[in-house]
Formats: sequence, C-alpha cells, structure tokens
Amino acid sequence: MIVRPRPNWLRMLFVRRGSLLLQILPQLLVIFAISIGVVIFHGELLNRKITLTAVPFSLVGVALAIFLGFRNSASYDRYWEARKLWGKLLTDGRNAARQWVSFTREDPRAFVQGLAAFVHATRHQLRNTDPWPDLQRLLPPELLPRLAERRTPALQILMWLAERLRDTREAGRIDPILAAELDRSLGGLNDALGGCERIAYTPLPFTYSVILHRTVYIYCLMLPFGLLDAIGVMTPLMVTFVAYTFFAIEALSDEIEEPFGTMPNDLALNAMAITIEAALLEMLGERNLPPKPQPVNCFLD
Amino acid sequence: MIVRPRPNWLRMLFVRRGSLLLQILPQLLVIFAISIGVVIFHGELLNRKITLTAVPFSLVGVALAIFLGFRNSASYDRYWEARKLWGKLLTDGRNAARQWVSFTREDPRAFVQGLAAFVHATRHQLRNTDPWPDLQRLLPPELLPRLAERRTPALQILMWLAERLRDTREAGRIDPILAAELDRSLGGLNDALGGCERIAYTPLPFTYSVILHRTVYIYCLMLPFGLLDAIGVMTPLMVTFVAYTFFAIEALSDEIEEPFGTMPNDLALNAMAITIEAALLEMLGERNLPPKPQPVNCFLD
Amino acid sequence: MIVRPRPNWLRMLFVRRGSLLLQILPQLLVIFAISIGVVIFHGELLNRKITLTAVPFSLVGVALAIFLGFRNSASYDRYWEARKLWGKLLTDGRNAARQWVSFTREDPRAFVQGLAAFVHATRHQLRNTDPWPDLQRLLPPELLPRLAERRTPALQILMWLAERLRDTREAGRIDPILAAELDRSLGGLNDALGGCERIAYTPLPFTYSVILHRTVYIYCLMLPFGLLDAIGVMTPLMVTFVAYTFFAIEALSDEIEEPFGTMPNDLALNAMAITIEAALLEMLGERNLPPKPQPVNCFLD
Amino acid sequence: MIVRPRPNWLRMLFVRRGSLLLQILPQLLVIFAISIGVVIFHGELLNRKITLTAVPFSLVGVALAIFLGFRNSASYDRYWEARKLWGKLLTDGRNAARQWVSFTREDPRAFVQGLAAFVHATRHQLRNTDPWPDLQRLLPPELLPRLAERRTPALQILMWLAERLRDTREAGRIDPILAAELDRSLGGLNDALGGCERIAYTPLPFTYSVILHRTVYIYCLMLPFGLLDAIGVMTPLMVTFVAYTFFAIEALSDEIEEPFGTMPNDLALNAMAITIEAALLEMLGERNLPPKPQPVNCFLD
Amino acid sequence: MIVRPRPNWLRMLFVRRGSLLLQILPQLLVIFAISIGVVIFHGELLNRKITLTAVPFSLVGVALAIFLGFRNSASYDRYWEARKLWGKLLTDGRNAARQWVSFTREDPRAFVQGLAAFVHATRHQLRNTDPWPDLQRLLPPELLPRLAERRTPALQILMWLAERLRDTREAGRIDPILAAELDRSLGGLNDALGGCERIAYTPLPFTYSVILHRTVYIYCLMLPFGLLDAIGVMTPLMVTFVAYTFFAIEALSDEIEEPFGTMPNDLALNAMAITIEAALLEMLGERNLPPKPQPVNCFLD
Repeated sequence: MIVRPRPNWLRMLFVRRGSLLLQILPQLLVIFAISIGVVIFHGELLNRKITLTAVPFSLVGVALAIFLGFRNSASYDRYWEARKLWGKLLTDGRNAARQWVSFTREDPRAFVQGLAAFVHATRHQLRNTDPWPDLQRLLPPELLPRLAERRTPALQILMWLAERLRDTREAGRIDPILAAELDRSLGGLNDALGGCERIAYTPLPFTYSVILHRTVYIYCLMLPFGLLDAIGVMTPLMVTFVAYTFFAIEALSDEIEEPFGTMPNDLALNAMAITIEAALLEMLGERNLPPKPQPVNCFLD
Repeated sequence: MIVRPRPNWLRMLFVRRGSLLLQILPQLLVIFAISIGVVIFHGELLNRKITLTAVPFSLVGVALAIFLGFRNSASYDRYWEARKLWGKLLTDGRNAARQWVSFTREDPRAFVQGLAAFVHATRHQLRNTDPWPDLQRLLPPELLPRLAERRTPALQILMWLAERLRDTREAGRIDPILAAELDRSLGGLNDALGGCERIAYTPLPFTYSVILHRTVYIYCLMLPFGLLDAIGVMTPLMVTFVAYTFFAIEALSDEIEEPFGTMPNDLALNAMAITIEAALLEMLGERNLPPKPQPVNCFLD
Repeated sequence: MIVRPRPNWLRMLFVRRGSLLLQILPQLLVIFAISIGVVIFHGELLNRKITLTAVPFSLVGVALAIFLGFRNSASYDRYWEARKLWGKLLTDGRNAARQWVSFTREDPRAFVQGLAAFVHATRHQLRNTDPWPDLQRLLPPELLPRLAERRTPALQILMWLAERLRDTREAGRIDPILAAELDRSLGGLNDALGGCERIAYTPLPFTYSVILHRTVYIYCLMLPFGLLDAIGVMTPLMVTFVAYTFFAIEALSDEIEEPFGTMPNDLALNAMAITIEAALLEMLGERNLPPKPQPVNCFLD
Repeated sequence: MIVRPRPNWLRMLFVRRGSLLLQILPQLLVIFAISIGVVIFHGELLNRKITLTAVPFSLVGVALAIFLGFRNSASYDRYWEARKLWGKLLTDGRNAARQWVSFTREDPRAFVQGLAAFVHATRHQLRNTDPWPDLQRLLPPELLPRLAERRTPALQILMWLAERLRDTREAGRIDPILAAELDRSLGGLNDALGGCERIAYTPLPFTYSVILHRTVYIYCLMLPFGLLDAIGVMTPLMVTFVAYTFFAIEALSDEIEEPFGTMPNDLALNAMAITIEAALLEMLGERNLPPKPQPVNCFLD
Repeated sequence: MIVRPRPNWLRMLFVRRGSLLLQILPQLLVIFAISIGVVIFHGELLNRKITLTAVPFSLVGVALAIFLGFRNSASYDRYWEARKLWGKLLTDGRNAARQWVSFTREDPRAFVQGLAAFVHATRHQLRNTDPWPDLQRLLPPELLPRLAERRTPALQILMWLAERLRDTREAGRIDPILAAELDRSLGGLNDALGGCERIAYTPLPFTYSVILHRTVYIYCLMLPFGLLDAIGVMTPLMVTFVAYTFFAIEALSDEIEEPFGTMPNDLALNAMAITIEAALLEMLGERNLPPKPQPVNCFLD
C-alpha cells in the first residue's frame, strides 16, 4: 500500500512511486517503435498502403470502454471488499476481546493473544508465508503441535478459542447467553477468514483478462495506420499516449485484482496485522506495544 | 473455473484456455465472408450501391453500450453472488461445526459429515447430477430412505441435523440459548441454498438476450457497408475485429450468467464442495483428508 | 417469466417469445413511414430544406445514454430485488417450518400450512387477485372470518401464526429463547412482505419515464433529416434500426419495472408460490406434493 | 409522489404531470432566444465571426456524462434509500406490534398507537410541519408535556415505549428474552429515524451542483456557435432540444435529491404515514380504519 | 460541509462557496497561457507545424471517462460510507442510551456522557486534534489517566463502558440477556469506529491519482494543437473550458476522498459530534442542551 504523499499538481506529474510506468515500459516501447516504422513507411506494408481511418477505432471504443470499465471496477471491488474483511478482522477481534474482559473474570491475556495469532495466521495463509515465528510468539507451546501441517492453521486457533470459551462456560464462569454472544464474534472472525479465502482463491473469470488484453493490443497495434493520414508525424506520440492510458488501466487492475499480494498497490497485510495486535493488547491496558508500522519509501507492505 | 496461469503480456495474446475464440469462430467466419463479399462487389447489392457511412453505427453505439454493459455486469453480479453464497456454505458450515464442538460434548463426527453431505447435495441439485455416491459415503444408512425421491434432498439433511440438535437439547446436553445459536447457523445454510436456487432457476429476463443478440448481429452484418467507403480493403479485418469484441462479450456473459454450469468460466462446484468437506473434517482434528483438488489443464470443475 | 430455451446464435435471431417486437411495432411503423416520406421529399418540409446533420444527435446521445442506462438498471434493480424478496419468503418460510419442527413437539401441519397461506396471500395482494380459494384450502375454517375484508390478509395470517406460537410458549411447550428465535423468522416474512409492498406501491419517479419517452421520440422523429444527406435511401432502414434499439430498451424497462405483473418478463409469482408450498410440505415428510409448475410455451406466470 | 397513470406511447408525449417543462421553461427560452440571435447575426459577435465547431462539445461530453450520470444516480440512490427507510418504519413498526401482542397479554392499544405516533413525529420532523394534531390524537395526554419543545419528539416517544416495555418486564409480564427481542424492533425504528435524518441533513456535496450547473450552462450558451455552420436555421431547435435534456436531468435530480420535500416527485410521506397507522391498527383487529390515501390529480403528497 | 443555499439557476452560476475555481485557477491559467501561445505561433513548435486533430483526443476520451468516472464515484462512495458510519455512531449511541435507561434502574448520566465522549474521541482521532477538553468535560476524573498516551482513547472509553455494564450485571441489576443486548450496541459503536479508521487510514490506491493526473494534464496540454485548425482563435477559450471540467472533477474527488478532513466539502464532524451529544442528553430529559451548530458562511465544519 502506497501511503499518499499528497504532492502538488506539478510534482504529481513526476512522482515515481505508483506510476506503473516502468512496468508497462516494454510494451510502450514496442508500440512506439511500430508507430515510427509506420510513419517512415508511410503506412505501407509490403508496398501496399493500409487504408485505415480512425472511424473503426471509435466503434471498437464501445466494447473497449465496457471491458476496461468493468475490469477496473470489478478489480477495485475485490480490493475494497478485501479491505473491509480486514476491517472486520479488526472490529470482531476487538469485540471478542472486549466481551472476554467484560463477560468473564478470567485472565484475558492468552485469549487475546490467540485472537492476534488468528489474524497473523490468516495473513500468512493468504500470502503463503511462514506463520511459525508469529504463532510461537503468541500461542501457548502446548497448542503448537495441533497446528502443525494444517491446511488452515487459523481454524485450529479458532477452535482452541472456542474450546477455552466452552471450558469457561462449563466451569460456570460465564453465563450461557454471554457465551453465545462471544461465540458470535468468533463466528465473525470465521466469516472474515472465509471471505478472504473466497477472494484469494477465486480469481476474476480469466477470459475477461484474455479478451481485454487481446482487444487492447490489437487496437494499439493497428492504431498507427488509422491515425497516420490525419496527424502524420505526431502519430507515434499520440499512439503511445493512447496506449499508455489503456495499458495503465490494465496493469493497475491486474495488480489490485489480487489484493493480498505484495505489489505496491496491494493491501498492507503486515502493517494491518501488527496494528490489530497492538490494538488488542492496548485494550488490556498494555502500554508496551509493538511499534507503529512506518512506511518505507512511502510504502507499507 | 480457469485457474489463472499469469502469463506475461506477450504470451497472453496466444493463450488457448479461456479465449472463447473457438466458440464464436463460426459467427466470425460468417461475418468475415460477408465483408469480403461486400469488398468484392464494391458495396453493391443487386447492382444497387448501398450508401452507408459509419455515422448511424456510432448512434446505435449508445444503445449497444447500454445493452452490452448491462448484460455483462448483470451476469457477473450473478456469478459473484453465487460465489458468495458458496462462501456462505463454507463459513456457516464451519460455524455450525465449531458450535457443535464447543456447545455440546457429543461426538461431532456424524453431525459434521451431515454438514458436508448438505453441501454435496446442494451441488448435485444445482448441477442435476447424481447425489447418491456422496450421500452414501457421508450419511448414516438409516437416513438414506428418507432422502429418496425428494425434490430437494439437501433440505431433508438439514431437517435431520435440526432433529439431532433437538434431541440433544431435549436430553439436556445443550443449553437452549446455545441451541438457538446453532440453529441460526443451520438457517444460514438454508439461506445459502435458497440463494443458489434463486440464481439457478430465475434467469436474466430472456428478452435482454434476444434484443442484444439481434442488435449485435444486425449491427455487424451492416457494418461492412458502412466502413467500405472509408477503409476499403481493410473492411473485412476491422469488421471482424469489431465483431470479435461484441461476440466475445456476449458469449462470456452467456457463460457466467449461469454460474453453476460446467463451462470453463463457471464456478468450480466440485472443487469447492471437496474443499468444504476437507475443512470441516480438519476442524475435528482429522489429518487424513480428501486431497486438494488439482486443476487439470488450468481448469477446476 | 420466460424460461430460456437457449437456442443457438442463428435461431436466436428469429425467436418469437420475448422479442417485444410486436409490442413496439406500431411506433416502429410510424417512424419507418416518416423516414420514407423524408426520403421521398428530399428532406424538405413545406418546400424548405431541413438542414440537419448527425452532429446534434451524437451530442444528445450523452443525455440519452444517461436516461436509458439509468432507466434500464433502475428497473432491473427493482426486478431483482423483488426476486430476492421472494427468495426471502422461501428461505424464511423454510426456516420457520424447520424451527417449528425442531423447537416444539407440536403437530406442524397447521402451522406450516399457515406459512404457505401467507405466501399465497402475499401473491394475491400483489397481483390483486382473489385469495380465497387458496386461503380456504390451507387455513382452518375458524380463521377465515378474521381475514374477510382486510386490506392485508397476509398480516392477519402472520398474527395468527404468532398467536399459535404464544399459546405454545405459554403452555410451556417451547422455551422462550427458541420462541424468540422463531419469531424472528416470522419477522423475516413480514419484512419480505413489506419490501414487496414498497416495490409494488412506489413506482420509479414518473418524470423519468416522461422525459425519457419524449427525448427518444423527438430524437427518432428528427433523425431521418439528420441522416438523409449522409446515407440517402438507407435512411428508413437505419432510422428504424436505431429506433428499434431505443424503443426496445424503453419497453423492456417498462415491463420489468413492475415485476409483480403478468407480462412475459415479470416474475412467475404463481409458480414460485406453488414451489414454496411444495417445499414446505416436503419438509414435513409429505410425498404427495403439488406438481411442479410447467412452463406453457416457455412461459411461467 | 406521482402515481403513474400508464398512458399509451402517444399520450405520454403530451402528459402534463411530471414533465418538469414548466419549471425549466425560463432557461429554455433564454437559450432559444440566444440561438435565434446567433442565427440572425450569422454567428458573429461584434462583427467578428466566432469560429466554432461541434468538436470541442463532444470532448466536453465526457465530463458532462460523468457529472450528469453521477448526479442523477446519486440523487436517485438518496431517494430510494429514503423509501427503504420508510419501508423499515413500516416493517419494524409491524414487527413491534406483532411482538407486543404475542409476547405479552397487555392491552396493545396504547403501545401500538405510540408506534403510529412515532411514525407521524418522524414525518413532521422531516418536513418541518406541526406534529401536535397527530400527537394529541394518538398519545395519552400525560405524555404530551414531555414532548413539548423537543428537538426530536420522536425520540421521546421511543423512550416512552421503551419504558412501557421496562415496566411490563419488571412486573414479570414479559420474559426478558422476549423483551430484548422487542427492544430490537424499537432499535430498528431508531435506526430508520437516524437514516432519514442523515439523508435530510447531509445534502450531496454542494460543489457537484455548482460545477454541473456551470458546465451545463456554458455548454448550452456556446453550443449555437458550434452548430451554426453545420445545421444553419435548425440551430435554435436542436440547441433547445439538447438543453431540454440536460436541464431536465438537472432539475429532476435536484428534486429527488431531497426526497422528503413536497415537490411532485418526492416521497408521499403523508400517505405513507397514514398507511402505516392503518396497518398497525388493522393488526389489532380494528376494522374502522383511516381511509386509504387517494391521489389528487395523480398526486400523493 | 457546505449547507446548500438553493439559489436560483442564474445566481448559481456566480455562487462563490463550493466552486473550487480558486483552487484550480493556477493550472487553468497555465493551460490558458499555453493555448494563447499556440494560437499566436499557429501551432508551430520550433518552426515545425504540429499536425494534430481532435481525433486522438476522442479516442483517449474512453480511458479518461473510465478514470474520471471511477475516481469520482469511488471517492463519493468513501464520503457517503463515512457519513453512514457517523449515522451509525448516532443510532447505536441512541440505542445504547435507550437500553441503559430501559434495561437498568441505574443513574444513566455517567454512562450516556461516556457514549458522547466516545463520539468526540473518535472525531479527534480522525482529525488528529486534541481530545482532552471534551474528555475532561464529559468523563469522570478518575478515568482520565487511563486514557493518557493511548493510540485510540476511544477504545478505552468503550472498555470502561463495558466494565460498567459488567459491574451492573454482576450486581444483579441487569438481566444477562439484556446485558448481551446492550453489549451489541457497544459492538456497533466499535464497528463504526473501525469503519472510520478503515476509510481514514487506507487511501484509494495512489496509482489511480497518478495515472489520472498525468492523463488529464497531457491531454489538456496537447489539446490546443488538436483544436487549432478547427476553431482557430476560440481555442484558448474552449481548451480552458474543457480543462475546467476535468480539473474540477479531479479536485473535487481529491477533496471528498478523505471525508474526515476540514476542507469545504468534507463531513462536518464537529457539528455532528455536538448534535449526537445533544441528542443523547435530550433522551435523558435534559432541556439545557448544547446549542445547535450554526453554519458560518454556509459552512459547517
């Protein structure tokens, strides 16, 4: 996640972070080179003039607008829903912590650390990273073997939290109605995990990307022939400008479509998980918290 | 469901899976042939010149954009809502399993296998396939006769789960308040089933498809006459390109509009049902799980 | 509701059901006749040439796209929300039936038939049809006088169900917590009824229809003058094609805007109510169910 | 709220109600007059020809489409959300009434009239009208002083309902779990009131209206110069037609943006409040109901 | 938040508040100056004619419409969701206050002031302002040390409210089921806080702003060359008009994208927090309320 530096309108034209320019540079150079070739050969291919105007391109524009617009908003919806699900991890985690403190008189430390471990386990599962350092740090040692070699260690943590709740209830130290209420917060954590899994493991229908990609590239490859007669030597510049806008939409959609990755515009799962852990500990009155995540080069990962 | 292989921008132009090209090839060839005919006969029909320019086509573009854009997003909304409902089957199934374990001291095995059977029965109902192998594998034999010849066997499984809950409650082995909470998870499964039935049995108003189809085909059949004077021999190429984008949107919308089918871009119900079953069993501590579904040729069904 | 026959791309051009063509034929003929007149008189009106090009029409296209696009999606949203509310009638009805069976040991027959009667009463209220045959079939005779001459008989049925629940609770045959849970399902039925009433009795702001209608007709009536100089004798054909797409969007929006009607694209309330009744009875183990509604000529009402 | 008379396509062109024409007539006349002036002076201003074509206008069309489309759908969303909130007042009111009847054995009359008074108080607050006639009609006299000089009398009624519920519970005449359930319906009424307040007191960001207004007017004032060379004497007609569509979108958005007003397309709060009151009384078995609101000149207020 | 003065159509063209004109004036002047230069030098750069027409600009229009439209609606969604969350602070605060009064017989003053303090703490956190004056005014002195140096003081207030609820329940002065219900309102406040934090700390993906900004500026800088041949001396005027609409959309989106700021179109957090406090106190019967916030120069902050 790029933390916006809010430059003024002039410096915004030259900002480096988040410009995607480097990423789509190869394609832009290819398009630029082809356009120059078209200008040099006066739009002839094998000594035969390619008669083309801009008209068919504006007709294709209808389909292109639908595809690009759809791809862009569908990808952003995935991104923002993913963010909401992480917000739910935060709020339901805080709800569970508050309820454990106010519904029981048990020592909340282990339970609340279990909540934090659940969040870290979710993060590691979504990013395919190693959860063990965080789990060992936060969970009681006797629980760890149960988590080994699991497909979803987070679920085992949730089961363990539910069992602690059961033990407390069976010992008569929490009213059943309040236990049911607390269980609902655990259910909310499960729902958030399930939502993240849905987004992570079900991509946009792949055919969208294929058709959009082909349409954009065929469009940009033929555009020089269509503009040559109208704007002459300016063709390479304008074609590259058009291509820049289309490629940029496509590349950005591609990036935020999978919001749990580690590319610049993806969600800062690391920073969010640490923030949730700190918020949960602070609720217990703790003052010695993990430091706030600081953006490195305007970037939180 | 096509599991995205993430090729680079160049190979993406030639990827085979998910391109829909084969599917719309006949129509494209017809359009291409007609365009060539138009070029050969100089846009004359029965020795009479068809005077047409691109202007009316850009006016029709307004209606076309509305229809194509609407059809595309309405179809995708159905697809994504279907996916959310299957996510709800997963999360509410996991909630019910967690609650059964932490609210009662009963042996959870039969109950949790019943939850998995409910998911499989839902899948078979939506795809009109034979549920019996899965039901026999997961349910106690004495339950099976009750399911025979039912319109919705899944509902009978849900009733059976509710009756087990009733028996446990009447035997005093679960607090009523916790039984009510668990019943809510069963209600969530019922809601997910009902949502899937809604999508499966209520198509988009058929008239949308008819009008869009006609508009697109009349448009593409007349387009060669409209472009001939402007772009000459390039007409067949550009008309086919325009037709490709329109036909592709239409074909893709048609495919994901019924997300429970078995076409390449439909939801991978088989894989999801097995994943849910494995997740439920793993929650009980089981380590001998059904293997993770592997995409065959980038394709999960 | 037209049950989609899924013809191939060629036969789809000539399908009869759901084409709306007959419905908008008069207007199309008027437009066609006017266009022919314009061609014959060379675009002159009272011996004075109407100088018009396509340019202003593409400028009006902006407003037209907004109106048509908005009207279309707002109407579809009403249609689909109505369908969701009927899905809620199904799922909350099934929830209530399951809960009655698993929360009490009462004979469920009368209660569940009451749920079915509620659904039928809702349908008859929305369509202004006579509810009595269905009510007499499903409800105990002593209840009927209470329903006579009511504005919303469905609410009286709901009150009666709530009273049965009260009697059962006061007799100690259902735990209060479970009674509260069941009452929530009754509340869900009430919410679904209220949602249907909202859609049925609050139309889209009428002004939308008026402005859109006028814009579309003025546009189509003046279009022949705008196209004549560019496409000559093809004018009548293209103007009628443009008009077809606009009129079709308008006519279809008009139809699904009131989704509880009995036009071809409206919701199949009859079929849905019978399906819900069958599902509720099947949950009780009944095997002698009302037959599945069969589409007549691809059409469910 | 205009109750749609559903005229046929021809009479719809000349319908009076809901046409907004009178409202935007002054602006249209100004535009028409200016266009005629432009035609008369051959597009010259101070003897200097204004060289303008339609090209820049179609470029501005992009921004215009975004602004008009956004303004229109944001306003309609406010309108429809407001309608949903009034639907919530109806359904939660009915839920509370049903629960009061089936959860307690108290005389429901005063409580249910209190619910109706809450709805009327909400209506009067949103429209800044005098609530006293309705409150005196529906509430017990001893409650009235408590409501005098309050910013939100509706909230005092809600508190009074909650206190009656408390008294009943403390007297042991309602189970706490059922009281909690009923309190949730009161919470729903509070949420609906809060939602209405949100829409009523937070307008769309005012800047949208300003920018849109300026863009539309500058556009329409300069359009005659842009069309003159292409369409000559038809300029005034076409410019006025373009202006009509834009002004109409703007005026309609302006009207439904504040859905609680008393303009023709606003919500019929009076009719809805009376309908809710009648529905609540009918639930108690009452047959002597306030008459159904009848549209006056197709108009409900 | 600008409180709309509803001027008539003529005065709306010259309104000062909310016009953004001053803010984008520098950029507009730069564009205007460049356009004049282009006119003076007849579109030549270094004695070489820049051959450009409007065609490529209308092709770029597709991408521009997608970007501007998306940026605008995504920003407004953030703004309106933020407003809804503040509505939730109001309604859940009122729910909690009503429940405290009707579920317990405790003195509600301290509890309800705690709710108001929570809202003020949320506001100060979102705006990075000093919460202490408000906290000292509303909270008991012994609570204050616990809030010092906290990252989220609001959460500590919520914990304190939950502990008061716990103490009341343990003293047997509130039924557990009602305590669970009240805790849900506290959970709603936590959810609203979490939602606000999500919007405040996760900006729109920064790359959107960068790409849109570049596209808009390159577009406007090259537009004079594209229009010169068609509209001659009118170029500077029309280019500036086009630039005005684009810059205005961008500037407005930028402003409401962060709805918790203090710019003119941002949410009036101060006014809303005071309104919520007054509403809560009025529910207790208080008549000596903080005065209603009055807009200063049509502006609430």
